[in-house]
This record gives sequence, structure tokens and C-alpha cells, in this order.
Amino acid sequence: MKKAALLGCGIVGGGIAIIMNENAAYLEKSAGEPVELKYILELRDCSDQPWADKVVKDFAIIENDPEVSVVAECIGGVGVAYEFVKRALLAGKSVVTCNKQLIAERGLELLEIAKAQKVFLLFEASVGGGIPLLRPLTNCLSANRIESLRGIVNGTTNYILTQMIQCGVSLDAALAEAQKLGYAEANPAADVDGIDALRKICILVDLCFGSNLPPEKVPTEGIRAVTTEDAQFADRMGYAIKLLACAARQDGDRFTAYVAPQFIKTTSLLGNVNGVMNAVSVTGNAVGECLFYGAGAGRMPTASAMVADILDTFRRGNGKKFINWGPERPERFVHPDDVPSRWYVRWSGSCSAPFAAACITEGTHSAAVTEPMLRSALDEMLRGVEILSVFRVCD
Amino acid sequence: MKKAALLGCGIVGGGIAIIMNENAAYLEKSAGEPVELKYILELRDCSDQPWADKVVKDFAIIENDPEVSVVAECIGGVGVAYEFVKRALLAGKSVVTCNKQLIAERGLELLEIAKAQKVFLLFEASVGGGIPLLRPLTNCLSANRIESLRGIVNGTTNYILTQMIQCGVSLDAALAEAQKLGYAEANPAADVDGIDALRKICILVDLCFGSNLPPEKVPTEGIRAVTTEDAQFADRMGYAIKLLACAARQDGDRFTAYVAPQFIKTTSLLGNVNGVMNAVSVTGNAVGECLFYGAGAGRMPTASAMVADILDTFRRGNGKKFINWGPERPERFVHPDDVPSRWYVRWSGSCSAPFAAACITEGTHSAAVTEPMLRSALDEMLRGVEILSVFRVCD
Repeated sequence: MKKAALLGCGIVGGGIAIIMNENAAYLEKSAGEPVELKYILELRDCSDQPWADKVVKDFAIIENDPEVSVVAECIGGVGVAYEFVKRALLAGKSVVTCNKQLIAERGLELLEIAKAQKVFLLFEASVGGGIPLLRPLTNCLSANRIESLRGIVNGTTNYILTQMIQCGVSLDAALAEAQKLGYAEANPAADVDGIDALRKICILVDLCFGSNLPPEKVPTEGIRAVTTEDAQFADRMGYAIKLLACAARQDGDRFTAYVAPQFIKTTSLLGNVNGVMNAVSVTGNAVGECLFYGAGAGRMPTASAMVADILDTFRRGNGKKFINWGPERPERFVHPDDVPSRWYVRWSGSCSAPFAAACITEGTHSAAVTEPMLRSALDEMLRGVEILSVFRVCD
Repeated sequence: MKKAALLGCGIVGGGIAIIMNENAAYLEKSAGEPVELKYILELRDCSDQPWADKVVKDFAIIENDPEVSVVAECIGGVGVAYEFVKRALLAGKSVVTCNKQLIAERGLELLEIAKAQKVFLLFEASVGGGIPLLRPLTNCLSANRIESLRGIVNGTTNYILTQMIQCGVSLDAALAEAQKLGYAEANPAADVDGIDALRKICILVDLCFGSNLPPEKVPTEGIRAVTTEDAQFADRMGYAIKLLACAARQDGDRFTAYVAPQFIKTTSLLGNVNGVMNAVSVTGNAVGECLFYGAGAGRMPTASAMVADILDTFRRGNGKKFINWGPERPERFVHPDDVPSRWYVRWSGSCSAPFAAACITEGTHSAAVTEPMLRSALDEMLRGVEILSVFRVCD
């Protein structure tokens, strides 16, 4: 009998409790023995819940119970979640989490503690929710040098952009709809401003390029600047606008990373990832391009990934765990301003549409240039004209 | 230092030799120590190859060398490959392979030997080539009851069908082109008749539904019956024709499986998987739909997956390996004739197009019926008219 504890029983935590109950037979088959959720740390009143008998209010009970070999953290943030995860690892328990802020900001430190304690810190659910992504990257693609990553990793903004293109609604209207449907928080800043996507690309970069990338180093642009006009233009030209989290290897073992809304062909797979769905495209030097697609958030997909991580801590036994994640090496980071791209540009005045078309389809402005080069060329050519939108165009 | 041996150094085996040489630094980081290819079993003359000094002609040298902990089989078929894999396992060595025929036909027996010997038999590359698929399925999705699988798992036929739809060429012309480009063998029967896809869906079923499914039990239809007219019709209606390998859970822990060309909407992700690319869509009861996309064959993608498997045997140490694959239970298999579907039907005579349209879009014939029901309805309605094509339509 293997025993786990849950920290926080809200949306995702509740999903874990459901899966560990309903899929118990599958879990036992997979773990080789029965798996029990022994404690649920939850401060709210849970007396009417089916799992009320498991509730404890004091983390020390979990910390001090040698029967508990793995702790699933569903608290969020880097306050008490950080403290409890650290204490659990120091108490010799493996930890699984979906907390991307915690991993993006404190992952390096926590992984070092886990290694010293010979336990596991697994966080498959922190990027791409239920989509198997981090483990395939670090395991199945381990024979590859990863060349680039490109992902739609935030379902809320993808829903909003999809609505803007497919239904012609404004960003505000699409956001209000997303909030009504429960896809967006009351305060949507972390999604709309790209912070959520930023944390996820940092985790992916840490794993794929092997040195810690602090979120504050990564230029991040949310979707607030995308207008209905841009969306309609994209649609007419056979493009979608997607908030893409990107990273790519550059010369000499260096890499770039950024988050920004970008134009992408609707004939590409990523250009067809719509609504709240997520997808990440990975290119390795041996395997070529692989793409992973699925529900990037939501109660059951996220809980599914966390339960799989729990099972994995049981299965691994004392097998080694290699996470290729070293300290920050600032000299490896190439600012995206130094990375050429094609661009979409829209500005006020009658020549707007043909010039924008030229930017995307043919004309001189479809040549790959860096953003500073583009802006200086535009200044030169369009003296006195107001530039309304500038977005990268993905090839 | 970890040591591996390679059986066969043709296309894929040569790719393994290249990766183990060129990506050596990444492999060492991943395995935690240097990894060496000690022997290459190859009967052809290899004296001009850079790895000529590793060549042996006698399998017993590998079998009897205690330094070799893992053997990579790239011979193919179930003759000598079966014998050597069995002997390697019995000699206490782990085995990795891309041989789908071997795994589909002898997987159950070989996995039992591996378990008894406490070694690993890994075969990620046998389905989907370089796409991480089997490990995510058995590991990341282990908290799920898998509900259905639907895959484009043969690149040759996908290339042919893509050419037929996008360029309007005949099957024979597209096949000749595929042979010229090296996508199809001189004898293309295993691809064109669906045998390759059949072996892959059997492996997926074995892993996801947990009991052995012998290939000869699975109704398999290749692409020879697909005509240019069908391809054009599909295109006009917003569909692609794809050779899909499908399996789905049915009532009472039963499941169905089949391989057949099917109509699928071009607005779906699978409908946009073109050329030689592969993709597998998996639906779990917690995670919902996930899709895995990438190069399903080819030297470097396949070799990449096999090298990752080699590394995995090193990393796992004595961690347990659970493969949920039991003996055949024939009572679990539901014949696809008993599974309702929508259908595309084309027949000779002037009413062909409207009736075919009705089958796909609206009309009474878009109702889900089984194939025997459909055929008897057609007999009734179309007495004396020749039916030219009947294909399932995917929802």
C-alpha cells in the first residue's frame, strides 16, 4: 500500500481526489499495489465532502507521518506552497505539483533539495496541463539536441484570440465571454499579459537548454494590443494570431526566448489549435518536429497529470532521476531584439492594407529583419504616419 | 561507462551509430556517465565504415559479453530478430527495438521473458517512429482509463492519399512517386494493404486495453480501393481521406479495433496531418483528447527513439517496469461490423453525387449505422446499381 497526501483541495485538488477514487483499479494495476490518499490539507470547512475524514489542518501531521511517501501540492503561488514543498522534500517525501510559478521561480533550488534528499520533484502538470509534455521531452527525446520550442500554452488567451478571429468580436467582449465560461479569472492579468505563458516557457527552456532562465529576463508581450482589425486581416490572409511562447537555440550554445502574439499560417498544425486547447511544437536535431496537443488546463486534465506523477514516484523506486537543469548562465541568453523575423505591420492611412499585405506575402518587407531594424526602416519610410500594430510572422 | 550492442546496421541502425557518436555529450549528460556502442552485428562488408572496428559477425560474442547491458535490434521480421532478441533477454540484457512485427506478434512472450529476467524490453520506435507515444501513453496517462485511439500511423499511405487529394493524381502515380522518393518499398504491400498500420494498432491496443490482440483478428483494409473520384469528392466536401488505425472501448470492458481508409474533416487536427507525417489521437477519461504528431518513420527519427530507449534502460536502474499487457481474451473483442458509424457511399449512375453528399452531410444516411445495416439498406434502395466505394466517416 502506497500513501499520498494532498495539499489544497480546490479545483485541481478535488480532481485528484476524484481520480484516486474512481480510477483506483487502474492506479493499482499501474503502481503494482493499492494507492491511498491518506491526508488532505485544507483549511476551509469540508465537513460535507465525501473525503471529510481525510482532512487535516496542520501540515506537520503530513510532514511527520513516515507512511506518506509523496505529497501533491495544489495550493498555488510561492508563499505557503513554497514552504510546504520545501519541508516535504526535506522530510524525505517526493513532491508533485502543477504550480508553474513555483517551478519557474524556485525550481532550481527545490530540485537541488530533492536530489540531495534522493526524492523526486515532478511537475508534468505545470506546463500544458494534462498533455504529456515534460516527460516526453526529457525522456523520449533525450537522444536529441533540442533546437526550438514553440507553444500555445495559455488556453484563456487562445480562446480569446480564436473568438476574435472566428466571430469578429473585440478582445474585451471575448474576455468577458471567457470569464463567463470560467476560462478566465476575475483578474485576468496573468493570462492576458502573458505571465502564465512566460512561466511555462521558462520551465521548458530550463529543461531543454539546461540552464536556469529567470522569468524576469524574458521579453513578454500579452494580447492586449491585438485588435479586431488585426484579427480580420490575419483571417483574410490565411493566418491566425496566436500567443506563442518561443525559444530557439542560437549560435554557440546560446538561446533566445520570448512570449508574444504572432501571425501563424492556418495551414500549420499550431495555426489550427483553437479555443482553450494547448499545443507545443518541439524540434530536435534527430527527430525533427514533434507536436503535443491537448487540454492545457482544467480540473481533470491537470489532476490526471498529477496522479500520473504520483504513480511515477512509486514506480521509479530508486531508479535515478536526471533533470538537466543547471544554474543561470546569463551569457547564453540572446535578446529577441537580435533575432530576425518576418513582420506584420499595420498603420493609419490609405496605404495600410497593401503595405501590410506586402509584409506578409511578398514585397521587400517580408525579408527577415530584427525588430529594431524594422522600426528604423518604418521610421524612414513612413515619416509622420502612426504605426498601429507590429507582430512577428511565424514561418 | 555503459555499453550497448547494435544488431543490424542498415538505415535505422546506421542512424543509431550516428546519434551515439554525434550527440555523445547529450547522451552522457542524460545517462549520468559515458555511453559506448561496443559491437555492431552486421554480416555485410563494412570495412569502409567509420565504425568498422566494432563489427562482429557472431551474435554469441555479444550474448556472452557481460559488459553489454543493452542490445538494440534493427534486423526486422520475426526470424533471426526473434531468436536474437530472445537470447539477449535470456542472457540478462535489456533489448530495445523498432520492430513492430516482432512486438505485435511475439510481444507478449518476449515481455514475459524480460520480466522473469528483470530486464527491459522497450519498443517506443515501433509505433510512430520518433514520436514520443508509447511511454507517454503508459506513463503520463497512467491515471486514465483510455477510451479511444485513432491514428495515422503509416507515412507511405498518408503521403499517397495526400497527393491524391492535393494534386489529383491516381493512387498508382502517387505510389510510384513515393517509391521514387524512398517513402515506399519496392514491394509496398505491407504499407498499402494496411499491414504496417495493423501491427501498430495491435501494439497500442495491447498497451492501452491490457490484453493481447493478435493481428489476424483485426479487420484490415488498405488504401487500394480509394479512387481519384473519392479523393476529389472528399476535398470538395471539406474532408480528407486518411488510413486510420482505430480502437475504442465498448460496453463492459470490451473494445473494437480496425484499420481502414476513412473520411475525416479537414478542420480536425488529424485531417491536417499530411505527407509522410504521423499522428495519434488518444482520449482518456480524465485528460480528454491528446494528440501526438511527428515523423512516423525515417532513419533519424526512429534512431532517436531507440537511443532514448537505450538511455532509459540505463536510467531506470532497478526501478520497476509495468507493462499492462496480459494474454488474449477473445471475448473482449467487438467486431467493427457491430460498431455503428456514418458512411460515405459512391455508386454508378446519375444519383451518385447527391446521395453521397447526403451520406456525409445531412439526409437520412448520415445516421450512424453498422456496415451490414448500411449494405442491406443500400441493397434495398439501389437494386441493380453498382456500389463503387463505401468508407467510414469519422466524427
